[in-house]
Amino acid sequence: MKHDSLVIAGREFSSRFFLGTGRYPNPFVQNEAIKAAGAEILTFAIRRVNLESPGEDAILQHLDSTAFTYLPNTSGASNAEEAVRIARLAKASGISDWIKVEISANEKTLLPDPIETLKATEILVKEGFTVLPYTSDDPVLAKRLEEAGAAAVMPGGSPIGTGLGILNPYNIGLIVEEANVPIIVDAGLGAASDVTQAMELGVDGVLMNTPVAKAKDPVRMAQAMKLAIEAGRLAYKAGRIPKKPYATASSQLESFIVK
Amino acid sequence: MKHDSLVIAGREFSSRFFLGTGRYPNPFVQNEAIKAAGAEILTFAIRRVNLESPGEDAILQHLDSTAFTYLPNTSGASNAEEAVRIARLAKASGISDWIKVEISANEKTLLPDPIETLKATEILVKEGFTVLPYTSDDPVLAKRLEEAGAAAVMPGGSPIGTGLGILNPYNIGLIVEEANVPIIVDAGLGAASDVTQAMELGVDGVLMNTPVAKAKDPVRMAQAMKLAIEAGRLAYKAGRIPKKPYATASSQLESFIVK
Amino acid sequence: MKHDSLVIAGREFSSRFFLGTGRYPNPFVQNEAIKAAGAEILTFAIRRVNLESPGEDAILQHLDSTAFTYLPNTSGASNAEEAVRIARLAKASGISDWIKVEISANEKTLLPDPIETLKATEILVKEGFTVLPYTSDDPVLAKRLEEAGAAAVMPGGSPIGTGLGILNPYNIGLIVEEANVPIIVDAGLGAASDVTQAMELGVDGVLMNTPVAKAKDPVRMAQAMKLAIEAGRLAYKAGRIPKKPYATASSQLESFIVK
Amino acid sequence: MKHDSLVIAGREFSSRFFLGTGRYPNPFVQNEAIKAAGAEILTFAIRRVNLESPGEDAILQHLDSTAFTYLPNTSGASNAEEAVRIARLAKASGISDWIKVEISANEKTLLPDPIETLKATEILVKEGFTVLPYTSDDPVLAKRLEEAGAAAVMPGGSPIGTGLGILNPYNIGLIVEEANVPIIVDAGLGAASDVTQAMELGVDGVLMNTPVAKAKDPVRMAQAMKLAIEAGRLAYKAGRIPKKPYATASSQLESFIVK
Repeated sequence: MKHDSLVIAGREFSSRFFLGTGRYPNPFVQNEAIKAAGAEILTFAIRRVNLESPGEDAILQHLDSTAFTYLPNTSGASNAEEAVRIARLAKASGISDWIKVEISANEKTLLPDPIETLKATEILVKEGFTVLPYTSDDPVLAKRLEEAGAAAVMPGGSPIGTGLGILNPYNIGLIVEEANVPIIVDAGLGAASDVTQAMELGVDGVLMNTPVAKAKDPVRMAQAMKLAIEAGRLAYKAGRIPKKPYATASSQLESFIVK
Repeated sequence: MKHDSLVIAGREFSSRFFLGTGRYPNPFVQNEAIKAAGAEILTFAIRRVNLESPGEDAILQHLDSTAFTYLPNTSGASNAEEAVRIARLAKASGISDWIKVEISANEKTLLPDPIETLKATEILVKEGFTVLPYTSDDPVLAKRLEEAGAAAVMPGGSPIGTGLGILNPYNIGLIVEEANVPIIVDAGLGAASDVTQAMELGVDGVLMNTPVAKAKDPVRMAQAMKLAIEAGRLAYKAGRIPKKPYATASSQLESFIVK
Repeated sequence: MKHDSLVIAGREFSSRFFLGTGRYPNPFVQNEAIKAAGAEILTFAIRRVNLESPGEDAILQHLDSTAFTYLPNTSGASNAEEAVRIARLAKASGISDWIKVEISANEKTLLPDPIETLKATEILVKEGFTVLPYTSDDPVLAKRLEEAGAAAVMPGGSPIGTGLGILNPYNIGLIVEEANVPIIVDAGLGAASDVTQAMELGVDGVLMNTPVAKAKDPVRMAQAMKLAIEAGRLAYKAGRIPKKPYATASSQLESFIVK
Repeated sequence: MKHDSLVIAGREFSSRFFLGTGRYPNPFVQNEAIKAAGAEILTFAIRRVNLESPGEDAILQHLDSTAFTYLPNTSGASNAEEAVRIARLAKASGISDWIKVEISANEKTLLPDPIETLKATEILVKEGFTVLPYTSDDPVLAKRLEEAGAAAVMPGGSPIGTGLGILNPYNIGLIVEEANVPIIVDAGLGAASDVTQAMELGVDGVLMNTPVAKAKDPVRMAQAMKLAIEAGRLAYKAGRIPKKPYATASSQLESFIVK
């Protein structure tokens, strides 16, 4: 499957696995998981990074920054203003001008605020950021974010960290159907089958953190998720059989020869 | 993941993919699909094979019989007596003493008859066959088949050829939980995510035919399914995160440092 | 909806609610729940009843036996022989010659044994009982039980007492499609929506015990379940709209008149 | 269940069934369906009504306006401005100062635009309307609409007219959990079991049109839906049993007395 690369804002990736860097048991496991995942894009909360000296950050210092595209996120922001401020800090400190807009005012669900997310996306696009907003699975909002200049749109499968998978595959499918930018399912995935399902719905990639970092064996799970992405992508390209209400024999009945 | 091999009746397999040989567009595509699948066990209907000269059979003649374990099936049989007769013919003609018992009297659904399947299994086990019965997802029946000496038990996900996936994951999980022989999900799978889900439920392998042979691109789909099996198996071993009703941030809120 | 009565073995019922009599907080609540349910058929375990003087049984003594059809069950039986013995005891003691065959050897799941259930049904039908076997949702087995002379067939939605609802609506639908005797969903229901769904699948009635007896308010739940049955039955008769992938306006766009 | 009335903007209703008036075969069937539904709130598109003489409108002329609360909707509006204009026209013509805000720019899905819906709600609340916005199932947006002064919030189960039911019960449950105003599920329902499920999730009412008007027997379906609402509401109040992974006998094993 040559040339089936993911392109975001003109940058080409061979992996479709966006990996979060939080919550691993220790930096060694984190590094091994990143390797096993084959991830090229890493995401982390800006607030977690010591912006004055990011090179000394507990997590980033273990990584070779030239090998990855960093996608810092604005988690912790509860409105557009805060998100914009965090994004600017990240850019000013030289980490990245890619930004995952993540805005929530609800501590229980951490679900994204649609209004503030759109507002922040509009502002940051105008300021020249490459913006990837984390949003709900609302198809109309996904379209509005694309129209606002998002480089990719990242609908959640279910609330972050829940492992509930894709609660509404129909909506994810609609979003893909209408999209002109890459769609990345972000948040809520738990199982490898959730990931394969996402890819079969036609999304361009998935972002995970908890399902890998908090698995019993994070490194092996990173590898499982990598394969799940590839399996789902290949299956999507290969064109599945239609569903039928009744059986059909898979062996040709007509050539029955036992007398 | 060394040593994670599948053992059935003392024979060891590195692949967990049982592949059917019917319904491919042509023998070339069939052969390429078998290669892409990495399958070591091939299944086909006895009635379809010219038992007097199996080497000239349209399908089998293209395969190197020493490289595969053949699992002929008794499809077309509508009761135990017919299935037993077909199995004996297969053995007598030198094809295999492994047999997949497949008995159905319902042409619309091709669902297996539980009573006749158990009866045929009991008889064939006594005659020295290695018996792998195709059965419904009834957990009690699966146990009865194991007790009757089945080398592996093969519950269906949904009616053969429908692509409806695993209609009752709960039952498949129960069957796995109680089993002392390998459990192979047989029939009804359609998507790569169905396959990954099956493996995450803890089954030991999957059998497919239509989802590969009738995909738009059978060879690519064979590869997708191979990866889906590996992803699901790895994820099962790696131990998924529990499901939670509410979100938890995957970035450590406590270390918020942006002032 | 006149004349939409349920007929089993020539007896006519206006209610489609089979109610179990176990596990209520006390006899008063039980009686009120039975009234609220409008149930005409009551089921209970023979082993629970003092067969020498059923009139003094803690539960039955509170009921007017002429107002109900009693459907004693053989729960506790782990094979056909035990079930047959229990059924004969029930008949001999004058309780009823209707019998719900319920045979399980698995204490964890209490799932019915398909082989023993069929065997007991065959024997009891020959002895003149009106037999309603509790079975799995295996469509082939359901048909075999009908052919053996069952007056109605009672597939489970999920294991008894779990409240998991109908795990495999497809199978229940298939069973209905092929049946010539009433189909009663028995076991596993938890919610009123499970009940409505069952009825919309075309089943002829439902049997419940735990969902009513162990609800926070059993009497109110009995009434809810009664309405849920009626709603589902009416909806089944009324013919639902087909599912569509996309929207259609329910207001006529063509007659837009605001200028 | 006395006193379990629905209160919106200080007005009390004994029915929880919001019924649309479009798409019926003819006015007679419509009227009979309204009666069978017991609906007290009727909804229709303003654009469909001849605003200069609503009394002569093909649909409204058949209804006794004093017996119902009219909830005109703004369907056809593709932005806040258009919706506001339609609402003002409805009010000026004396139909109602209750308004269901319905704004969509996507003709294929007719899904509501979250940004424009919030904007129109804010404006119309300030103008003194009783505003019930139709929105997606995004829990954050539902909360924002409540904060903007919506008298009730109406999340969709799935796209209007599809009959796909509640695609994301989790989100509907979250919305209910956080709400301080009535939540009415609007759009996408198809089956009576969808309705019962909605009510069991704790919503305060449901709005339907197509599932009734386009059923094979609309009048009978109206009655089915009425019962489904009552069943779900009662069940919600009665407190369902918890789901369990394994069975428990509903008959008391300890009192086994058959020797």
